[in-house]
Amino acid sequence: MPEIRYNIVTREWVIIATERAKRPEQFAQTDRPPEKLQHYVATCPFCPGNESQTPPEIDRFTNNGQWQVRVVPNKFPALDRDAPISRHTQGLRRTISGTGIHEVIIESPAHDTHLALLSASDFDLVIEAYHRRYDSITADSRVAHATLFRNHGLRAGTSLEHPHTQVIGTPIIPPQVRQRMETALSFYDSEGQCIFCSLLADELSDGARVIASNSHFVAFLPFAALNPFHTWIFPSHHRANFGDSTDEELAALSKILRLVLRKICFGLANPDYNFTLRTPPREARGSRYHHWYISILPRVVRMAGFEIGSGMFINTALPEASASFLRNAKTDPS
Amino acid sequence: MPEIRYNIVTREWVIIATERAKRPEQFAQTDRPPEKLQHYVATCPFCPGNESQTPPEIDRFTNNGQWQVRVVPNKFPALDRDAPISRHTQGLRRTISGTGIHEVIIESPAHDTHLALLSASDFDLVIEAYHRRYDSITADSRVAHATLFRNHGLRAGTSLEHPHTQVIGTPIIPPQVRQRMETALSFYDSEGQCIFCSLLADELSDGARVIASNSHFVAFLPFAALNPFHTWIFPSHHRANFGDSTDEELAALSKILRLVLRKICFGLANPDYNFTLRTPPREARGSRYHHWYISILPRVVRMAGFEIGSGMFINTALPEASASFLRNAKTDPS
Repeated sequence: MPEIRYNIVTREWVIIATERAKRPEQFAQTDRPPEKLQHYVATCPFCPGNESQTPPEIDRFTNNGQWQVRVVPNKFPALDRDAPISRHTQGLRRTISGTGIHEVIIESPAHDTHLALLSASDFDLVIEAYHRRYDSITADSRVAHATLFRNHGLRAGTSLEHPHTQVIGTPIIPPQVRQRMETALSFYDSEGQCIFCSLLADELSDGARVIASNSHFVAFLPFAALNPFHTWIFPSHHRANFGDSTDEELAALSKILRLVLRKICFGLANPDYNFTLRTPPREARGSRYHHWYISILPRVVRMAGFEIGSGMFINTALPEASASFLRNAKTDPS
Repeated sequence: MPEIRYNIVTREWVIIATERAKRPEQFAQTDRPPEKLQHYVATCPFCPGNESQTPPEIDRFTNNGQWQVRVVPNKFPALDRDAPISRHTQGLRRTISGTGIHEVIIESPAHDTHLALLSASDFDLVIEAYHRRYDSITADSRVAHATLFRNHGLRAGTSLEHPHTQVIGTPIIPPQVRQRMETALSFYDSEGQCIFCSLLADELSDGARVIASNSHFVAFLPFAALNPFHTWIFPSHHRANFGDSTDEELAALSKILRLVLRKICFGLANPDYNFTLRTPPREARGSRYHHWYISILPRVVRMAGFEIGSGMFINTALPEASASFLRNAKTDPS
C-alpha cells in the first residue's frame, strides 16, 4: 500500500507510490543521447584562450600556473550588480529593483568534463571557490541571501555545456529559505534543539537511508525524498551557515560531494541533476537554530501537474531501496 | 533594468529578467517533433472498444448515444481508494496511510485530439465532468482536498497520449493550498476583503495583463507571472470553492478556458503545459475569505536549479508583453 510521508524540515508531503515503484536501476538515464563533447570548443566563452569573451574575471584558482577554476560575472545576469535598491508599491503590486549579483564559477578548463569526473584535488578547488564566492557575495550589504546552484544536463536547465556552477545574490530572502528558518526556530522553541541535528540523529540511528559519511558530513536520502534519488548532505556537527565552515570541513565536503556525485553518475548512467547549497542568510552565522546543507535532485523523473499544482510530490521509488542502491553504487566507470 | 515582483497571493518572488527578455513569439515550441498521432490506437486503454482495459467505469457523458467523456479509476493509482486512514509517528518521522482517490477523466474518444481542439459543446462536457468528479471525490470523508490537473505533452509529464485530466483526492491539505488559505485569511483580517477579489479589481483597473473576459470569468497573467505565459483564470464575482459553481458559470468557464487554451495552442505552436484547478477545501464553500481559480503554466522554459533551490523564479518575458501577445493571438489554425 502507498504511504504519505512528511518532511518535518521542508513541510512537504510526499506520496511514496509503492504500487508504481520501479527498481532503482530502472531510473538510469538510458535515453541520453551519446555525448561526444570536444575537449576544447573555439566558440565556448569558458574554454581557455577565450577568456576575453567573458566579463572581467573576479577570481581564479590555479594549478601548475594555469587556471583550474575561474569566476566571472554572468554575461546575461538575472540581476544588476550596480543598481541601488528601491521599492515600489502600487495597489496590491509590490516591486523591488532587480539589484543583485550573478556569478558563474567555471569548474574546469576542460569543456568535456563535469564535476563528478574531476580529480579529488581539482574538486577541492571548486569547493574553495564556492566558499570564497559565498563569503564575498554575502558581504555586500544589498544582498540578503545567496543561492548557489548547479544545473547538470538539459533536463536540469543547463544552457552551456562547459561545466559551471552559478551563485545569485538576491536583495530578498527566498520564500523556501524563510520557511525553513521559521520551521527551525519554531522547533527550537518547542524542543530546545536544532531540527537538523535532531533529524540527523534520527537518520543515523535508523541507518536505512544513509548513503555515506566521513568525519564531518553525512549523505542520506530524506525520509520523504521528493524523487527517487533526492539526496541531502548535512554537516554532522552543528554548523548554522556555510560561511562558518573551516578548511578541514571544506576538505571533507569536497570528498563526500565528489563521492555522492560519482555514485549518481556511474550508478545511474550520468543523469541530469540540480544541486543547491541551502544555507540560511549570513546573519545566521553561529546561530543555534539553523543548519546548512546540500540538496541534490537527480532529474530522473519529470515534475508534472500534480506536483506543480499542489506542492505535494509522488515518488515512485522507496527511499530505503534507493539509499541501498547508492550505498552500493560503483564510484568508477569500470 | 531587471525588476523583482511579488505575488501577494502565492508569496512568490519573480525576477523579471528584462536584460535576457525574448519577444513572446520566440517562445513558440519549435523543437516539438511533428506529431502524427493516429485517431484510434488498438493498444490504448482510453480508445473506444478498449473499455475493458480500464478499471470499471465511474461516470460517463454521452453524445448521440456514444460516450464522449469517460471517468475511470487510475489503473496505477498514487493512492489506495479502499484503505482506512491511519497515522504513524516514529522519532521525527510522520507517515499517513496512502489513502485517497485517483481518477482519470478521458476527455474524448479520439486519440489524436487535445483539449484546445475540442468543439465548444464537447468542451462543455469535460467541464461538467470536472465539476461532478470534484463534488463526488470531496464528498468522501477521508478526502481533505482534491487536486484536479492536466499534463499536456512530454515536458509537462504526460505518460499517455490520449487526452485526459486527472483528479487526486488526498487525506491531507497540500502545503500550497494551506499557504494560500492562510494568506487569504490574514488579508481578510487586515483589509476586510477577499484578497483574490482585490487583486482582480487591481488587474482590471490596470488592464495591461488581461487576456480575455466574459460574463463570469477573467483571464490574465499575474503581475509576478512565474514564466512567460503563466495564466490565471479567476471567477469575476466572489466564489470561494469550485463546487459552488452554477450551471451558468460552468458554461462560461468552458468558453474562457477553451479560448485561452486555443490562444496558447495556435499562438505558440502547441506548447506543452500543465494546468491546475486551485480551489480551497470543500469546507470553504460559501466562505468570504477564499476564491478558486485556474492556473495554466505553459512549459516553454525549464525549471532549473535556482527555481528549485530557492522558490524564486526567473521570468525572461515581460508579463505585459506576453499578455498583449495572447490577447491578440489567433484562436484558429488558419
